[in-house]
This record gives sequence, structure tokens and C-alpha cells, in this order.
Amino acid sequence: MFKKILIANRGEIALRVIRTAKEMGVKTVVVYSEADEGSLPVLLADESVCVGPYPSNKSYLNVQNILSAALMTGAEGIHPGYGFLAENPDFAEMCRDHGIVFIGPTPESMRALGSKAGGREIAAQSDVPVVPGTGVLDSVDDALLAAKQIGYPVLLKASAGGGGRGQKVVRTQEELRTAFSQAQEEARLYFGDPAIIMEKFLEEFRHVEVQVIGDGNGHVIHIGERDCSIQRRNQKLIEEAPSTLPQSLREEILSAGVRLAKFVNYAGAGTLEFIVDRDGNFYFMEMNTRIQVEHCVSEEISGLDFVKLQLEIASGMPLTLAQEDVVLSGHAIECRINAEDPDKDFRPAAGKIDNIHFAGGPGVRVDSHAYSGYTIPPHYDSLIGKLIVHGETRDHAIRRMKRALEETVIQGPKTTVPLYVKIMDNPFYKRGAVMTNFLKTRMEA
Amino acid sequence: MFKKILIANRGEIALRVIRTAKEMGVKTVVVYSEADEGSLPVLLADESVCVGPYPSNKSYLNVQNILSAALMTGAEGIHPGYGFLAENPDFAEMCRDHGIVFIGPTPESMRALGSKAGGREIAAQSDVPVVPGTGVLDSVDDALLAAKQIGYPVLLKASAGGGGRGQKVVRTQEELRTAFSQAQEEARLYFGDPAIIMEKFLEEFRHVEVQVIGDGNGHVIHIGERDCSIQRRNQKLIEEAPSTLPQSLREEILSAGVRLAKFVNYAGAGTLEFIVDRDGNFYFMEMNTRIQVEHCVSEEISGLDFVKLQLEIASGMPLTLAQEDVVLSGHAIECRINAEDPDKDFRPAAGKIDNIHFAGGPGVRVDSHAYSGYTIPPHYDSLIGKLIVHGETRDHAIRRMKRALEETVIQGPKTTVPLYVKIMDNPFYKRGAVMTNFLKTRMEA
Repeated sequence: MFKKILIANRGEIALRVIRTAKEMGVKTVVVYSEADEGSLPVLLADESVCVGPYPSNKSYLNVQNILSAALMTGAEGIHPGYGFLAENPDFAEMCRDHGIVFIGPTPESMRALGSKAGGREIAAQSDVPVVPGTGVLDSVDDALLAAKQIGYPVLLKASAGGGGRGQKVVRTQEELRTAFSQAQEEARLYFGDPAIIMEKFLEEFRHVEVQVIGDGNGHVIHIGERDCSIQRRNQKLIEEAPSTLPQSLREEILSAGVRLAKFVNYAGAGTLEFIVDRDGNFYFMEMNTRIQVEHCVSEEISGLDFVKLQLEIASGMPLTLAQEDVVLSGHAIECRINAEDPDKDFRPAAGKIDNIHFAGGPGVRVDSHAYSGYTIPPHYDSLIGKLIVHGETRDHAIRRMKRALEETVIQGPKTTVPLYVKIMDNPFYKRGAVMTNFLKTRMEA
Repeated sequence: MFKKILIANRGEIALRVIRTAKEMGVKTVVVYSEADEGSLPVLLADESVCVGPYPSNKSYLNVQNILSAALMTGAEGIHPGYGFLAENPDFAEMCRDHGIVFIGPTPESMRALGSKAGGREIAAQSDVPVVPGTGVLDSVDDALLAAKQIGYPVLLKASAGGGGRGQKVVRTQEELRTAFSQAQEEARLYFGDPAIIMEKFLEEFRHVEVQVIGDGNGHVIHIGERDCSIQRRNQKLIEEAPSTLPQSLREEILSAGVRLAKFVNYAGAGTLEFIVDRDGNFYFMEMNTRIQVEHCVSEEISGLDFVKLQLEIASGMPLTLAQEDVVLSGHAIECRINAEDPDKDFRPAAGKIDNIHFAGGPGVRVDSHAYSGYTIPPHYDSLIGKLIVHGETRDHAIRRMKRALEETVIQGPKTTVPLYVKIMDNPFYKRGAVMTNFLKTRMEA
């Protein structure tokens, strides 16, 4: 096991890694930007190194400074968290070149899965269904032809994109003519790569994802699936595990996820994202080759610590867990508490938290880097914490989440808490009738 | 199930009951003293009724006002929490007379088990070993004779006492001559009953207790045992489940506990307290006919909600849980966070909490009624919250507790947190070599 690791991230995920590392006796170094100087991870890590001012390319994406910090402090591994450098194969390779373990999959499998086009190709090879669509489109004529075959509406996606960014819905030939080159331009701007793919656009679907853990030696297991359909602008707000899909469909999706991860001989924790349509058809969307924000709900129903598994696998320990050792029990829900105003189209509400009081009691877990007096910097995402509950059944978990939300007090910025209280009371949500357009179609009145 | 219950208690246990009631859809009425007006249970209950000024006989022990509050608000049951009226059979009887369900055992079993002498008698009848000792002693001559047979040192106990109060260690004949009438006088003063019993005094022992649940119809199961040996002045500080006793001894104690509870046809949640000496002999001490402060560690390893079970049994629902349904997994530890100065003999440190920040993350549970800005009233016990962790093994739970304690920030009063950090690092504690004299004998250096 590592003696010391560096955490190349901030906020709640940096704290999450520190917690497990402390429990395992692994020393931690956290890097931080000038804007995060007084943050909880910096206060709680064994060591901390400032790697630059707030623009992320000067700090959390500043590969040189981060690698120097790791070498200087003698960190043997780097945990990238999620976002920033977590899915950057070049960084993973540079770590390897410097004799530092990148705590994640190999650069090779990150590259193979990193583009939408590559992911679709691998899915096809491992016999996992994908949404009707194309590889990289070379011209607007190719695009028009493809759209004719697939049928409108279609979705243009940056092949190198992720997290819902760089996507465009196109409903007519005319729209496609102008949208295609725009999409290419934006893809080049945001992701440094103009490659565009096209997929059939589904008006509503469930977002269901499979959590896998692999050892890089052909052994891959799943830790169940999560439903993350409640989203705003393609960003998840509420996640739960297990999903409410019929058992046979769950098993099909889980085995498709494991099949694909085995195909790339995956090492570490990863997530395979699927779309499930109204008729129960499922399609592979993409693989996130990292720990996810919503990993906690799967931890709660499995009793496993995914960060511990990540550290064990990265340090070369065998994955002794067999699929039959993974026993899922009860139901878990996570609400992402964002400093945003849900009544004003989720406008970010950074600023000082005058007072924060989280829920407690049985079955409640809080993962948050916020504290009373903490000033949320305006430069990063608006996530200030995650409220996670575990109950005997889905119904119990919903009632537990509601009482936990009602106990939560955050004075200062507006947050998404009041919206979640309403969702817990929503009859569609309660019976699991939730698609990605839930907020637009099911929250009237 | 009840539609509405009244909670005749305060602090964290009142909040604990509110949490489960909310999750079950049961409305809550909390009674409070003038000193607890701004307390969290009062803020979170559906209704609240002030029952008098702070002296407990005028508020939390004011039976007339509490019963009136229940009748006025239409509460169908009264949950007494622990302490105050929780083990008062007369109150339970008055509830029954007023058509209100006392959420606890019958007045009859409370009476039978309520006195030390009665408990010893029932233990003998149900073939459960007790510490060598006597029934109620009539005179100092009886006491001298008994002490000669038992062997010094002996312990004088108020038969009606509890919670470690009204106990006197006597080491010689001469001491006994003066101590006996003093003990009688104190027992009359504190418990309204001068009856005194005598037991062999053990210099060091483990405190191990068995959690039972009975349905009042002969069905009694155990939810494992707890070790609560770390105490100061006979008051528990740290509890854990399961104990570190050898498996065969654990099973003997568990079956003794169930046997005794079955003998009195116990209804509801209860705890049988045992002494375990260095040689592995165990002796029944007393039964607590209520929920206990430390119930949470057993909840964590069993996944059960004991307050839910209490409400179900009290409302007449059958106890469907069989012994084989109770599956214990992992290890849980609780630290009682008291506003006390451990460096000054645990002197209470009431006052305002300027800022409180509890630990979070995986496996951490916080049960606390405290919040930033809360003023701890000086009139009640010093418990401001309980930090509970659940880990895979005892060793993991210790490391998790240590990191959780290190995350905990309480600004204002002194607390027991720094002491617990030291205990988590103590080599004797780590290997489970813990007797009730731990703080005196194992914390040097």
C-alpha cells in the first residue's frame, strides 16, 4: 500500500479521498489553488501545496506544478478525483513517466474509451447496444445523409466531449446545415478537437449507469447500477441505487457493463453510462474512467469503500472481491446540494455560508467540504455537499431523505435543498416514474 | 400504527424519536421545560408543549402536566426516552389509566425488574448467574454477617437505584458499620426507598450488555451485545458492538439475556447489563427497561431501527423478526460527546456553543441536538451528542473514529473529544484490553 498519495483535486472529493486515506494510514498531500486556501481539504490533509492562482489551467490543470508537488513531497501516487485531470490520458502517462502511480485506469484504456466515437466502437465489439448513430462525421453532407437514415431529431456531440457539454439537438435538415459547422467550431474551442458524431435524439429516457471495479488482469465485477435521471442541463441532481427497472432488465444492463469493461481489461473504478428508453431498450452512452460524484449511493447499499478499492488496485494489490461477495441491500438516494437558485434557472449563488447545519441520525451520510463561515469561491462548480440516505426500501429512503432535508439549514447562499423537498413529495418521483425531462414535465404546480 | 405520539424527554433522545416518527409518518408532540425553549427537538417536532420551569420535578417529571399535554394534543402514545420517567412503573400505569399507550414494557415487568433485589431474584429463577450478594438487608448486623460470607471488598447498593448512583464500596468491617446507615439514608433521600442490598465488589471488570426486543407474547430476540467498559464515575463514555469476548462466552451471555427477558415476558426494547470478570465469569447486574443512550451501535451493526421496533410493538403490531433474521455485520463504536473538561475530573462545561462542525463521510453517524449558537443549559446532563462509526472490523472502526474525532470542531465549551482521540491511540484500547478502571489504570503517560 502507498505510504503517501497526492490528491489533485478540491472540494468534497478531495475530502472524500483524505478520509479513506486517513483510515488506511496513508499520508495525504493536497494541492490547491490560491482561491481554495482556507478550504477543508487543505486544513485536513497531512500536507498541502499551492499550485497556482484560480484559473484552473494555472492550478488544478497545471500538470507541471502538480507533478513537481508530488515529487517534492514524495507522494507515490496521485488520486485525480473527478473532473480536472481525472480523464486525461496524457497526464496519466506523464505520471507513469515520472515513476508516480496514477490512481485510475491505464492511459491506454482511457484513450480507447475517452472519445465518444471510440466508446461506440468498443461497445459494438463487445456486443453492447449503442444508440443508433455514427462515427466521426467528415462533412455536412455526411451528416445530412446520416440524419436521413437515423431519422430526426438527432443529437450532435463532440466526440471528445463529456458531462453533457458540447451537445446540440437538431430537428430539421435546415437546422443541421447551420448547426454542424457550429458544433465543430465549439468542439474545437472547448475540447481541442472538432470531431463530431451524431446520435438519434431521444426526447425522454432514463439515465442508468453501472459501477464496475476491475483489477487490470481480466477480473471485473459490478457493484450494481444507479439511476441518475433527475438532471438539469444534462447535469445530475439526484441519484439512487438500485434503479427501479425490472429485475431482468437490470441484469441485462449489469452484464453488458461488465462485458464492456472486461473487453478493455479495465483497472480501477469506472462507470458505464446507459440510456434506457420508455420501451425498456438500453443503449451504451459512454464510460467514465474515474470515481463519480454519485459513487456514495453504491457504497451505501454495498458496504464497500470505493476509494479504498481504488488505492488497493492502484498499489498493485489483487482484487479479492468476487461478484458473489457483493451483496446489495436496501436503497440509497443522494441529493447534490448546490449553491444555486433553482427558481432562477439554477443560477450559481456563490458567497459566504453564514451557518450550515447538516442532518444526522440513522441512515444519513453527509459528504461536504463546507462549514459555517466558508466562502464558496465563484470559480468552480456549485456543489457544496452531498446528502446521502440509506433506507430499507426505496419508499423508506425517500421518507428518510425528506426528513433529512428538512433538518438541513444553510444560511447565506440559495441552494437546491427546497427543490429536493418538493421532489421527495412528488407523486411521479415517489412511484419511480422518472425520466431525464422530469424537472420540465413533472414539477408543474 | 400511532397517528401521533408525545415525547416526554429532551436533547438528543427526543430528536432521535422525532426522526424515526417522521420517517414513519407519525406526528410528534414534544414537551419541554422553559430552559429548553430554543432546543432542536422543539424546533423539529410537529407540536410542542411547555410543561413547566427547569427543575425536573416541575417539568420533565411533572406527570400531571405531561399527561394533560398528551390528552390535549390527542397523542395516542408517550415515548419516555431514557432517564426521567422512562423506568417509572407508576407513570406507565397512569398512562394506561388515561387510555394512552406507554411506549415501553408493562408496569408489571418494570416493577419486577426495577429494584436490584427483584432483578437478582428473577435472575436466580431464570438460571442466570448474579454477583455473589444478598437481598434487602434489614440491619447492620445482617450486613456484617453477609460481608463476612461474601468477603471484602463489598458494594452497598440502593435497591431502587440505577445508573451507578447510590453505590458505596466498603473494604472493612469498621467502614461497613458507619457506611450502612449512611447508604440507607442516601437511598431514602435519592430514590425514596431506604432498601439496601450488598454485592461482592469486583476491582475491575468488563461491562457487557445484551440488547433484547420482546413482543410481550413470549417472543424475545437479542440484537447482539455491547461492551461499555470505558466509564467515568460509573457513567459510560465509549461503547462498542460487538464485544471482544470469545465467541462461546458471547453466546452464553446472549442466551442468558434472552432467557431472563423471556422469563418476564418482556415487551419492547430492553438491555440486560452484565459484569464479566478477568476469568470470563459473567454475572447479571440489572435490566434497563428502556432504550439506552448507546443503542445506536447495535443499530449500526444490525441495520435495525430500535425506535421503529418500539413503536411497532407498542402499537400492537406483531414482532415478525426472528432471531435468524438478525444479521450482525462489522463493528460499531460510539463516543459520547459531553460538555465536560476531562482534564478537570469531567467538570461540566455548560454554556454557549459558538460553532459546531461534525464529522461526515462513509460510516459516520451523528446523533446530536446541538447546533452552532446553542446554549447548553446547566440543569441537565452534559451530553451534547454522540459520534458513531461503523467499520468492517474493530480495527477499522477505531481508525474511522479517530479520523472522525479529528474532523469534529466544537468551539465554546470544553468537551470529551480530545480524550477520545487519545483513547483511540491507546495500545490497551486497540487490543480490546479494557475494563471499567481503564481511565484510571491505562491512560497514564
